[in-house]
Amino acid sequence: MLTTPEIDVWAATASAAGEAHLVPLSLAWVDERVVVASPAASVTTRNLIASGRARLAVGPTRDVVMIDAELDRTVGVDEDAALGAAYAAQSDWDPRGDSDYVFLVLRPVRVQAWREANEIAGRTLMRDGAWIV
Amino acid sequence: MLTTPEIDVWAATASAAGEAHLVPLSLAWVDERVVVASPAASVTTRNLIASGRARLAVGPTRDVVMIDAELDRTVGVDEDAALGAAYAAQSDWDPRGDSDYVFLVLRPVRVQAWREANEIAGRTLMRDGAWIV
Repeated sequence: MLTTPEIDVWAATASAAGEAHLVPLSLAWVDERVVVASPAASVTTRNLIASGRARLAVGPTRDVVMIDAELDRTVGVDEDAALGAAYAAQSDWDPRGDSDYVFLVLRPVRVQAWREANEIAGRTLMRDGAWIV
Repeated sequence: MLTTPEIDVWAATASAAGEAHLVPLSLAWVDERVVVASPAASVTTRNLIASGRARLAVGPTRDVVMIDAELDRTVGVDEDAALGAAYAAQSDWDPRGDSDYVFLVLRPVRVQAWREANEIAGRTLMRDGAWIV
């Protein structure tokens, strides 16, 4: 699912003051990392750099993959040619050349998948960064 | 859109420690309020009671309504018959009778709608709790 072309992710982050932010972003799955691109000055980027954490949702509300992730690194959009090419290949847009943007490389820590609430128990696919399925 | 039967909302909340949470919830739109039901002990309920704020998304990632909301009140699922009936009528499940759950009644403060990022500017529909369209 995470390798599907042109998919988006809901990215929830929080400020140190405890204010939640939520935006949709285009996703690429590169080397077991979720990669998104966001303006360096955006709330999402600033929250991620400050807190190091995000909670992500991929898919519709009733067939969803939830990912708790940690910020692995931020990368200028023209800093890492292989990463930029991989992102542009999966996503339907290409942030390279726009110095306002950075890639946010996120390491999944816990992954869960479910359709409805009664399935949540037992649908953990990754725990502590290790796939358990 | 908010009165559509059986729709869900992505609800992002944050703890006082700055940890973001994100879950999908079934939504009802009652008297200009977003109403969701969540276990009283859930992270979402606890975050909302502590911070008073949530950021909500309704619709798919590329045709979305984003709502910044404040907690108006929490209501036991069997406390307010009119609210419970309105929720059950729009949602496809009925939490009434399950004392683990509470209704979270959320007052929209800012509403934005867009399809893609280049539309975000100028797509504000509500500001400071007042519709501007």
